This record gives sequence, structure tokens and C-alpha cells, in this order.
Amino acid sequence: MSCLTSGFKAEIATIVGRDYVKENDAVSAIDYGILPENLGAGIVVLPGSTEELAAVVRCCHASSVAIVTHGGRTGLVGGGISRPGEIIISTARLNRITFLSPVENVAIVEAGVTLQALQEAAGEYGLEPGIDLPSRGSATIGGMASTNAGGIAAFRYGVMRHRILGLEAVLADGSIYSDLTRVVKNTAGYDLSHLFIGSEGTLGIITRIAIKLEPRPSFTATTLFGLPSTQAALSAMQRGLKARHGQLRAAEAIWPHYFYLTSTHHNWSAADYRADHPINLLLCIGGNDDADVQSEIENIYEDVATDYPDISAVIASSKAQEKAIWALREDTDLIYRKYPGAPSYDVSVPLSEVEAYLDRCMAKLKTLDPELSPYVFGHLGDGNLHVVLNTAHDAMDGEKIRAIEEIFYTGLNALGGTFSAEHGIGSKRAQTLIAQINHGKWMLMRQLKWSLDPTNTLNPGKVLTE
Amino acid sequence: MSCLTSGFKAEIATIVGRDYVKENDAVSAIDYGILPENLGAGIVVLPGSTEELAAVVRCCHASSVAIVTHGGRTGLVGGGISRPGEIIISTARLNRITFLSPVENVAIVEAGVTLQALQEAAGEYGLEPGIDLPSRGSATIGGMASTNAGGIAAFRYGVMRHRILGLEAVLADGSIYSDLTRVVKNTAGYDLSHLFIGSEGTLGIITRIAIKLEPRPSFTATTLFGLPSTQAALSAMQRGLKARHGQLRAAEAIWPHYFYLTSTHHNWSAADYRADHPINLLLCIGGNDDADVQSEIENIYEDVATDYPDISAVIASSKAQEKAIWALREDTDLIYRKYPGAPSYDVSVPLSEVEAYLDRCMAKLKTLDPELSPYVFGHLGDGNLHVVLNTAHDAMDGEKIRAIEEIFYTGLNALGGTFSAEHGIGSKRAQTLIAQINHGKWMLMRQLKWSLDPTNTLNPGKVLTE
Repeated sequence: MSCLTSGFKAEIATIVGRDYVKENDAVSAIDYGILPENLGAGIVVLPGSTEELAAVVRCCHASSVAIVTHGGRTGLVGGGISRPGEIIISTARLNRITFLSPVENVAIVEAGVTLQALQEAAGEYGLEPGIDLPSRGSATIGGMASTNAGGIAAFRYGVMRHRILGLEAVLADGSIYSDLTRVVKNTAGYDLSHLFIGSEGTLGIITRIAIKLEPRPSFTATTLFGLPSTQAALSAMQRGLKARHGQLRAAEAIWPHYFYLTSTHHNWSAADYRADHPINLLLCIGGNDDADVQSEIENIYEDVATDYPDISAVIASSKAQEKAIWALREDTDLIYRKYPGAPSYDVSVPLSEVEAYLDRCMAKLKTLDPELSPYVFGHLGDGNLHVVLNTAHDAMDGEKIRAIEEIFYTGLNALGGTFSAEHGIGSKRAQTLIAQINHGKWMLMRQLKWSLDPTNTLNPGKVLTE
Repeated sequence: MSCLTSGFKAEIATIVGRDYVKENDAVSAIDYGILPENLGAGIVVLPGSTEELAAVVRCCHASSVAIVTHGGRTGLVGGGISRPGEIIISTARLNRITFLSPVENVAIVEAGVTLQALQEAAGEYGLEPGIDLPSRGSATIGGMASTNAGGIAAFRYGVMRHRILGLEAVLADGSIYSDLTRVVKNTAGYDLSHLFIGSEGTLGIITRIAIKLEPRPSFTATTLFGLPSTQAALSAMQRGLKARHGQLRAAEAIWPHYFYLTSTHHNWSAADYRADHPINLLLCIGGNDDADVQSEIENIYEDVATDYPDISAVIASSKAQEKAIWALREDTDLIYRKYPGAPSYDVSVPLSEVEAYLDRCMAKLKTLDPELSPYVFGHLGDGNLHVVLNTAHDAMDGEKIRAIEEIFYTGLNALGGTFSAEHGIGSKRAQTLIAQINHGKWMLMRQLKWSLDPTNTLNPGKVLTE
């Protein structure tokens, strides 16, 4: 499969040990995640330390072998796709939490630690990483750093970029960049960590991360509102942000078509909750006083109902009910099982523009093809909307795909939003990136790539096409 | 004074208008802030728009004239020092708040807007920028962005880098980089904004910023504790972070020598508050329920007093008392009036290392010179300590200054801290930067500077020495 020389492979095996170079059947046995093409290189190398990883990179650099780095392979945009002649470096063995301090509220983790492993370790001290994603069981902190992952809590605690205090990365020539400060204030020169965060392994391979933790509230209260408009949902969310007791932890919006899909699949219903609201809003309040948090949710309901009398609401009264409400939002797999490879869009829209943006897009879409009725859901807290079309990927031709991208993307930059919110660029959106960002930014990106990786060793063809 | 050609000056005057090029007496009339050398160039240009500023930069680039950009001139490390033959670009006329949305909790401001102006504008909607500094009346958002300013709220809301959603900057060749997204999630390519944030005007001139706002609590309660140890202060702070009601807004520490200076100067005293505690801790809780916030502070006191019976405490019962407590922490001018140009240190120390670090430094300092008894105060929430020596700058020779730097800085990186927390590098700490950061980071910084500003037009000699 692979067209690498046996001498090269022997050298790699000497560095990491023969057991940690996987080929052939051993590769087929690896879970490829969402895309079979992830394992296209046919060879997976698993270094056991930063030093081993750096030595592998030096070896690749010397032999002009390109590298694709894998974390949990949960990426949705083909950032982990590899091809014969390249090697995959997996961070699976870099899975140690080397420091976790409840005095500092800081953890230092190797790149291959999963989000869930960190959540559990931090949870023992009443702390949490301040970032959460449905793919928490597989997604690694290294992968999340390199893709600048977002998720549910971003409106409050920021995205990965805002959680990372310091990092270590291996550069294209195999040298190690180390700036593992674990303090929030650091003006000791340019903060180069941000070159590696969000550049999807194209400028360096992140190997270790110092990450900020937050106190985890002891209690949460969750409610689902059925509301008459996005305006009403934004107003309910603003009320949540100004809670007298506790703090808003999540504000997730579910539009009708998607709500219908998940609620019917899960046989979800609640007394007096109507299924036909123009928008449904999941609000979660966290705090350290159970009664306060519950009464806050009830007060929010009262306030919202005063402003918008025609609403439905259900307040979860058990963990099971809370979980059932979350499943209505998070069970996105249902769409892809119905429409394999359904085209999806991951946009950030400034909150005051969300309603007009969606109205405009939906109208244009109906004009293009009356059968299209997308599933829409997302993080209302930060304006990140996920739109998935009710059509299989194979059912669309290139021209139609471009026409739909134009509907969702055109003008979004000028609005202060972005066509790529939290999923990244990978290979899937690399052409769109050229079309959507301004030329000055594009040129500066290329300049940085040339400067840091002149041999194009690191994840070639991702983010920036060759 | 200036050695610029009259042709060059005429060209600049054509761009911005004759009234906005200041020389001679007009420059002498400008408040130079903390350092007279700031105005050393003897010529100040005040563009009225990003386009004018970009045209000035193009003109400088073509004529090989270096540029020093000025905001509020509140910097403490000589980042704004200018020399004859250079020009100063002041952002004073770029002082418009062009967007402020209480739906999005976002403002877009020009670089010359002061922090206080933004605080006041946001305050009208019950919002705040999530960053606060004693120099709020003069410090500009552009200056704060370019120096990655920190301040009081950083433990909770991060530093400027974490507040900025998007920005516009003028590059060394006078081209305009524009990425003014106003959303928190953005993975549309490398986030180049972070090259400009914290690089102190050496990679680009920030002209406009989209900044995140936070709900401002309606009520605050402030207390000052006298405590037996740093350990006790950290424990009190952790208790504050886990408040049942409201949220911790500030955790500021004042060590005895500085406490004595400010409390005697202000004739401050409170019943039963002893002046001889090893550490004093100012805690502030904010929330939207007055009674809750007050009772939370009282509960924190009860809990701390249970663990550490030998404490003093005063809870402010009026805005005037609150202000008086803050003056004990913020009136740092008292030191400099007593010891002009007193050497100061601005370090970040991981919280679990603060006590041992200070003990070690103080012991070494006493060995070096028994007369040295520094003033120590700082942001305990994030481990940022400010240390000011009780000696005038002129009383120290170079060797002694280096010996003291060695005491405060050696080993700090390895601890996970940094010798430069929030004041930046400027010209004052540029030599120390070379000594303190690792060579790989230094080389990468130079590579970026060469790549983005090959003619060394932007703030030459700052951060990176030539």
C-alpha cells in the first residue's frame, strides 16, 4: 500500500519500537472515525513521547515524507485524510495527564488525552475544562487544540484558544517549541502558541498543553422552551445570562425540522409542549445551591412567559429528563443515517443577524429547490449554527453544491460572521476558504506556512491547498 | 529636532491635514505619560481614519522612516519611546465606538478609544468589557490590544487576547489586514489576529477591534482580610471562586510593606484590623441580588475564620469604604513619589508556587542587600505579582540590577511562570527577554518579524532588539 522505502520504515521503527508502527491488517483494525480516507496512508506511527515524535518528524523531514497527525479522528472536514506515501502520526500513546492542580485550576496534558478523560480527572476536584463537545469520548485535547474546537460552553468560557495557557509543539524540522507556561498573563514576547492553535497540524504538531480549568457547579437545572421567534429565544437567553442565582451553562437552539426528527425518533413528549414552535431553546443554569438554581429556571420561565405568552416549556425534574432533553439537541447521527454524507454547514452569525440570516437563506433555498428543508440547530449562545441538508451527498451535483454554499456563505464575512465556525477547514473546505476570506489574509497565511514549513511536510493540502 | 525631510513631512500633512502633524511647541504640549522619551521623535501624526493611517505607513515605508505608535502612553516598559528620525503615529483621533450591541454583547471600537470610554458606553446596557486596569482613564483599547493588557479581572475573563473577537491592522507595507468578525467561533484559516495582539506594534498597527462584553453585576461586596500566610490567602480565594451566590470579581493581594505605605498615607484603619498580617487579601464578589452578595461575603468570612482563626477582616458597608479599600491596593504612585524610577518586576507565578517563590526571592534579596525591602502586591487570582524596590533607579548600578533580576527571574520559566506578566517587553525588557526565553522561541520570533516587517519599519528596537 505504502510507497515508503523499507529503510525509512526501519528507521521509524528504531525510534518508536516495532510494535508502534502499524501497517496492513494492523491499520485495518484501527477505527478510522468518520472517514475511511483518514487511514489512506496505510501506515500509522505511535510515538510514546514528545522526543520520539520529534525524532520521527526529523526523519520524515530528511526523507521528504509528509505527515498527517491524528488525535481521535472525530474531525468532520477531512483534516485527517492521508494518502499513500505519507505517514500518520497518532498521538494515542501520548495520553498522560502530567499535572492537575486544584490550587491553580490548571492541568497539563499530553496531546492524546481525550476530553472525557480530562473532564473525569478534573471532576474529582470539582473542576471542569470549560469546554464540552458531544464527541468528548474520542476527541483528544491535542486535536481540539489544533482545530481550535468550540462546543457548548464557548459563549461563556471561549473556544480552545481561550482555554490554553501554554503548549509544546514539534515544528516541521523536528525541533521542539516549548512554552508551557501555566499562567494566564504572559507578555514575554510574541505568543507563538496561537500559530499552532487552529492551524490543523499544518504549522506544527501540538504535543502537550497547559489548560485552564473552571469550578464545576454542583447543581444544574435544564429547561426546554418552545418559542415564537429567534428574537424570543435571544431574549430568553439574555435573561439567562443575567441570572440572579447561578450562571447560564448552555443555550442551544433547535429549529422545527430537526426537532421533529429527534423528538419523534426518541418518542419525546412533555405535557402541554407543542411540537410546532418556530424555535426550541434548551437553557441550562448551573450553581452551587440546588434550590436557587431550580428557582432561577422557574423565574426565567415566568419572565419569558410574561413577554411571550404563547410558549411551551418543560423543566427537567430528574437527570434522566435532563438527558432526554439533551438528546433532542445532540443526536445528530439521526440525520446522517437518513441521508448519508448529507452536506452540512457550520457558520457563525452575529446574534443580532441570526433571524434575518436564516430567513434569507431559507427563502433562497426554497427558490433553488423546494424539496430542500434543512435541519438547523446550534449554539445560540455564540451564534454558531449547524445546517444539514435533507439530501444525501451523492444526490447533489457540483453546481448545486456551489449554489447552496453561495446561499449560506455570501455576505457572512461582511456581517461580522464566518463560514467556518468550529469544524475547521481540513481538506473539505480548503477551496471555500480561498473564495471566502480576503486576499490579504490568504497571502499572509501562505507566507507563514512557507516560513514555518518550507518543505510542506506537515499535513499538506489541508487548510491551504498546495 | 527631527531629521525628516520637508518633502516627507509635506506628504504626511497632505494625507492627514496640516493640523494633525504636530511638531516643536505642539509636541511639548502633549502629555508624554510616564516617560519623556516617548516624544523623542519630536513629530506626532494623528490620522483620522484607518485609510489615512495606512497611507501614512505607506509613505514611511517608501521613505524608510520608522514608526512608533502611541495610544494612551501609559506603558511602563518603554514600548512607546521614540527617537529623532522616526515618527509617532497617535491613535487619539481614532476614538469612535462604531458598534455596541446588547444582543450580541459585542462592541467594535477604534484603537484610540479609552478603556473608560468603553466601560461607560457598555455600562449603559449593563455590560462591561471584562477587563479593568487602574489606568483606565488614559489607556486605549488599541494600546491594550497591542500589549495584551491584563489587569484585575484576568483570572476570570482572561487578558486582552481572550476578549478580542476580531481586529483590523495596518501592516508594515501600509496594506490593511481586516478580520473584524464579531463572533467567538472562527476557524476560517489561521487566526492571524494573535500576531498583532501582544506584539507591541512591531508586526502591525491595530486600528480597530471587535471586543466581547460581559453582563455587569448590579451589586458588589468587597472585603479585606488580614491573613497568616499566602496559603491562607489562596484558600480564601478558592472559597471565593466557589461562591454559592454571586461570583468572584477580584482577588488582590497586598503584602505588609506596601500595605503599611498605603494604609498610613491614607490614614486607613478599621476596628480590630491589625496592620501586621503577613498578607492582606482584597476580595470582591459581584451579583444581581444585593442581599445575597452581602451574605456571601459574610459566609466567606465565616469559612475563612473557621480555618484560620487569627485573621482580621473588614467588609465595606458603603461605596466610600469600598473605594478606600481599593486605594490601599491601587495607589502605587506613592512608591514612585518616594523612590523615583524604582526598579519594578512584573512576574507571573503559578499559584501553588507563589509562597515558596516569594520566600526564596526575599531571602536572596536580604543576602544581597539587607536594606532592600520590596513593595509587593498583585493579582492573586492569576499569580501576577508586582514587586517594586524601595530604592530610586539612580541608586543602583548595572551589576546590582542584573543580580536582582537574576533573583526574581531565574527558574521562573521552568516553574511554569514568566518574567513578563502584563507590562510587556518594550525597550526596557528587551535584553532580559533574550536571556529568559528559550532560543527556539527567540528564533521563531525573529523569523516572524523578518517575514512581516522586513524593513523594520514598525516600532524598531522594541520587543526584539535589532
